[in-house]
Amino acid sequence: MFFTSDNAAPVPPEVLAALSEANTGYTPGYGTDAVTAAVQDRIRAVLEAPEAVVHLVATGTAANALALATLCPPWGAVFCHTHAHVQEDECGAPEFFSAGAKLLQVEGAHGKMAPEALARRIAMTGGSVHGVQRGALTLTNVTEAGTVYTPDETAALARIAHEAGVPVHLDGARFANAVAATGASPADLTWRSGVDVLSFGGTKNGLMGVEAVVFFALDRAWEFELRRKRSGHLLSKGRYLAAQMGAMLEGNRWLDWAGHANAMATRLAEGLKARGVTLWHPVQANILFAQWPAGTSARLRAAGARFYDAPAPEGYEAARLVTSWSTTPEDVDGFLAALQIS
Amino acid sequence: MFFTSDNAAPVPPEVLAALSEANTGYTPGYGTDAVTAAVQDRIRAVLEAPEAVVHLVATGTAANALALATLCPPWGAVFCHTHAHVQEDECGAPEFFSAGAKLLQVEGAHGKMAPEALARRIAMTGGSVHGVQRGALTLTNVTEAGTVYTPDETAALARIAHEAGVPVHLDGARFANAVAATGASPADLTWRSGVDVLSFGGTKNGLMGVEAVVFFALDRAWEFELRRKRSGHLLSKGRYLAAQMGAMLEGNRWLDWAGHANAMATRLAEGLKARGVTLWHPVQANILFAQWPAGTSARLRAAGARFYDAPAPEGYEAARLVTSWSTTPEDVDGFLAALQIS
Amino acid sequence: MFFTSDNAAPVPPEVLAALSEANTGYTPGYGTDAVTAAVQDRIRAVLEAPEAVVHLVATGTAANALALATLCPPWGAVFCHTHAHVQEDECGAPEFFSAGAKLLQVEGAHGKMAPEALARRIAMTGGSVHGVQRGALTLTNVTEAGTVYTPDETAALARIAHEAGVPVHLDGARFANAVAATGASPADLTWRSGVDVLSFGGTKNGLMGVEAVVFFALDRAWEFELRRKRSGHLLSKGRYLAAQMGAMLEGNRWLDWAGHANAMATRLAEGLKARGVTLWHPVQANILFAQWPAGTSARLRAAGARFYDAPAPEGYEAARLVTSWSTTPEDVDGFLAALQIS
Amino acid sequence: MFFTSDNAAPVPPEVLAALSEANTGYTPGYGTDAVTAAVQDRIRAVLEAPEAVVHLVATGTAANALALATLCPPWGAVFCHTHAHVQEDECGAPEFFSAGAKLLQVEGAHGKMAPEALARRIAMTGGSVHGVQRGALTLTNVTEAGTVYTPDETAALARIAHEAGVPVHLDGARFANAVAATGASPADLTWRSGVDVLSFGGTKNGLMGVEAVVFFALDRAWEFELRRKRSGHLLSKGRYLAAQMGAMLEGNRWLDWAGHANAMATRLAEGLKARGVTLWHPVQANILFAQWPAGTSARLRAAGARFYDAPAPEGYEAARLVTSWSTTPEDVDGFLAALQIS
Repeated sequence: MFFTSDNAAPVPPEVLAALSEANTGYTPGYGTDAVTAAVQDRIRAVLEAPEAVVHLVATGTAANALALATLCPPWGAVFCHTHAHVQEDECGAPEFFSAGAKLLQVEGAHGKMAPEALARRIAMTGGSVHGVQRGALTLTNVTEAGTVYTPDETAALARIAHEAGVPVHLDGARFANAVAATGASPADLTWRSGVDVLSFGGTKNGLMGVEAVVFFALDRAWEFELRRKRSGHLLSKGRYLAAQMGAMLEGNRWLDWAGHANAMATRLAEGLKARGVTLWHPVQANILFAQWPAGTSARLRAAGARFYDAPAPEGYEAARLVTSWSTTPEDVDGFLAALQIS
Repeated sequence: MFFTSDNAAPVPPEVLAALSEANTGYTPGYGTDAVTAAVQDRIRAVLEAPEAVVHLVATGTAANALALATLCPPWGAVFCHTHAHVQEDECGAPEFFSAGAKLLQVEGAHGKMAPEALARRIAMTGGSVHGVQRGALTLTNVTEAGTVYTPDETAALARIAHEAGVPVHLDGARFANAVAATGASPADLTWRSGVDVLSFGGTKNGLMGVEAVVFFALDRAWEFELRRKRSGHLLSKGRYLAAQMGAMLEGNRWLDWAGHANAMATRLAEGLKARGVTLWHPVQANILFAQWPAGTSARLRAAGARFYDAPAPEGYEAARLVTSWSTTPEDVDGFLAALQIS
Repeated sequence: MFFTSDNAAPVPPEVLAALSEANTGYTPGYGTDAVTAAVQDRIRAVLEAPEAVVHLVATGTAANALALATLCPPWGAVFCHTHAHVQEDECGAPEFFSAGAKLLQVEGAHGKMAPEALARRIAMTGGSVHGVQRGALTLTNVTEAGTVYTPDETAALARIAHEAGVPVHLDGARFANAVAATGASPADLTWRSGVDVLSFGGTKNGLMGVEAVVFFALDRAWEFELRRKRSGHLLSKGRYLAAQMGAMLEGNRWLDWAGHANAMATRLAEGLKARGVTLWHPVQANILFAQWPAGTSARLRAAGARFYDAPAPEGYEAARLVTSWSTTPEDVDGFLAALQIS
Repeated sequence: MFFTSDNAAPVPPEVLAALSEANTGYTPGYGTDAVTAAVQDRIRAVLEAPEAVVHLVATGTAANALALATLCPPWGAVFCHTHAHVQEDECGAPEFFSAGAKLLQVEGAHGKMAPEALARRIAMTGGSVHGVQRGALTLTNVTEAGTVYTPDETAALARIAHEAGVPVHLDGARFANAVAATGASPADLTWRSGVDVLSFGGTKNGLMGVEAVVFFALDRAWEFELRRKRSGHLLSKGRYLAAQMGAMLEGNRWLDWAGHANAMATRLAEGLKARGVTLWHPVQANILFAQWPAGTSARLRAAGARFYDAPAPEGYEAARLVTSWSTTPEDVDGFLAALQIS
């Protein structure tokens, strides 16, 4: 009953098997090996983007911050949702990698930017030398609230950005969950909707620590490589990142894993609703926020459940619950049983 | 016959076994798990430093740059050897992490700083507001030339630094090889000789990508953690870094691996000398630089040998040759046989 | 009828006279001259802070950004009002000087932070390694809305900050106007109310370009000097900054100039109100925001008035109007006459 | 007898007169005024560069660091002379403004880069992702040793840089002295010899604190403006910088002032040589380094002379002596008289 995060889970056995398989003989270093080349090809195929430039790093924070620093100059603004991971959970990584860009928040319900709020923020930015300039838009799909952007919603926001000359980054730490949830193709959720750079997550979908950064537009790829090296994110033994990512992307595995996590969240959400628990947002992927009467959280924890608290109104408690590839129906049902709300 | 680098080799099977063993159940994230705690304890024991603060990262560049940024302010100078990795091979990582520190080079034969050169450089630095201030000393052991500092040599340099108020960092990407080569204790090679912060390498000694940063003095440990997070080097699934490092540090394994690499370099060096090849530096660990008649390199490569060229005088060629835990006597002997120098 | 900004005005003749007077003989450079020493003493006396460390720079952006970078680490948050100059008008200077700090906005009516909004923002910040840490509070007095904080209001905000371990900076680009408006002593408006570092403005009060940064607490003064030098803000011929500041601080001159500017704003405000013009904020110093029927602005400009537009509701126009030491009653009355609102 | 620096001198009365003249009425702010426009035109005319982009700042460190940051990316190398001001006397300003570029030193006698040393340094830099990339070349004319580059010497170095894709900056803190010394035209000493960006000094030639940054190539001019604002170097009351620069550039005045300084240095050098004093470098402009028997310096200072010591061999003392527009023949002759070397 471990619902703290999808990064608390172990990795699927296929990941270990792939590491073992890659562990033969000598290879050239720093991502110039054949295992890396194969996984770069595989990502291009998955995204139907044969020209895309693909690089691997070990963390989502690195993927996001490197991507944003490549898109946004030091005097630029990164437009992000009020509760975006880059704003709240990366200890200022985008500011560090970009040498001091400014993150400007855009409001919107359920973790998703309201198009008119984005348009307003962009319109207020840039022009004179006195303020920061328009830098980059970053969206997150799955959002921090556990909701998903459809291709149309993505495209609407990307269009506003592009019309103002602003490139678009997608933080896809849970991109697999978004693809599984929407049923949209990876291409439709990204470059066909205007995404210029994608952080394609592996860690939260079952890997030890691998994310791909995908540039659909090519022109700053060398700069990205220099930034990666300079920030200590170019691993010398690239095959061990690539092998993991390859294991995840074999066949339909990545969507099976993410689809399972989503299904467990749905099962949990339905059980909670049936017991009268309030859910703050539509449950569309593998994260949900639940609000229950005060005292419930301690009871759940006593029964072995693990999760993070969220601030709740007087008389209530709230929790963030995250499922993963390894969550079982028994975990969910056990949690619901421990809830004991009459 | 792969002598390009110790990071071209596969990892020992014990590393994969440890990953597999760590892959059970759920754990708290971001390095707060029990596997990480155990390896931190093990490192403190190995170093006889029960109060040391130990953190894991995935690359040597990250370890060095984070350590130096913690020691040296943006307006400080990092004193390093002319050919130090931080100066020549990290694409400006120390400058990036430190927000613009200046690396000042110190000369010395065979990759080792000359004490009087260090003293002179430090004396020339700081004082007025016009120049950069004294920041940190960084040594490398094993050096880029393949030589090692003894505890006494380390202490002589550290004393000069400390007398000027300058803290000391040791880039120990090949620390295991240095310990194996000198026979000195890890403590004697570090804090007992005045080292304040150690980059304790695992990757070049057989891991997929794990380095420990060890602070013998405690007071900036929290700052280090913030820098690590902010630079994307805090892995969410810490156990997979820790498990590898734990596998390496079990029993005497880390020194067995490094000692084997050193022995293979010695075997290679002796064979080369017997064939009249010039070695640029004393061969003390697992790196050597060999100079042979022009035409030899192509012959070696045709026979399957792999290595990097080094600039050589007219009529000669030179090569950097690195051995690892996985180099075999057959690799060495095959290389020597392919040499065909009469 | 030039109401665009207090920096559009010429300088009082006393400033030129002081430059002339300082222009005799040779002096040591970089702020070590006697003219600088005298003005540092004078500022300490004005502020009743004999231990304060005082440095001069040429711009308000430099003063603010250097002060904040000294107070707030790269991974820290600067708490500022939503419309603070540091947030909106310095092209990311605080982020640049601090190597990537994050500015977090605090709401409040009429340009002034609401204490409970500040407390909430601070409470939400820091703690875990995932978010930025608590860095510094920056207040602005006179605010961007033209209002002033009293000593009590300043102290209430500073207390919230200090209780959370957060030091307090005051952007006093128009500090003279605030002192003149409140009648409070400079000490009461600063260190006695909890301000730790003050940007003491001269430029907007009639100088060519001089601001003092005053550290009431001493311990980072040398760091500040290094930051100043490193950012190109240590002028070699310090006497020419100091002479101007000295001219302004002679006798009660600085408050006479500021008081005059305030009085002109009051005259303007009263005239506007009498003509039915809406003022957005209480007019307490030398800035006011006026809203009038559409069409009025063009008429005013045709009559020679100069000012900046502000966004206004449908059917209206709005303007920011700033007075200075050199604004005359005739300027004000001419402006009001040109208004022609029936 | 003040020979410490050309920035210890007062300013010529024409500078004060120009400030007074500019001090009439209201002007638009931030360098958009007519006085600034006129001086920008004048600089373009002086340099025979009608398309050049010209911006004013208050210090040479700002001019250099802003120029270099605009030319060199964070992962780039700035090639500079071993004793360049940017390397030794700006407390890391280029590193700060560029977000961490690395300064690589190039040797050469008498403060001037040896072309083959530059070629070698550039050849060693860039290529792989592991090292910093080729960023910018910066020359200094007059050099720190008091020597000057001719147009041919400048062109030889610039050619090496350009062939490697490296843009060229000229630190012209004493550009006027170099023009006066060589008799070359300002255009021949800059863009006709391959200089892409010029720091055109005013401060050391008699102004209170004004330097122009001149971009002969236009394409990063907007970026420069943002960098200037963001670093606090955009003065709101631009006319007061411009008026000074205008005063200096009226007619032949700037070369008269510099020529006088040079002539005083020549007079001093000849007197010193006649008295058997060793001069370290050819005396070509307004700086000289003199070496005399131990004990001489104290005698000179007792007689009222002021200068900086330089490190000298046993039994000797050395001094850096700088003349300025305000040095008189009496100063020089008094100094020589006080020397009392038999």
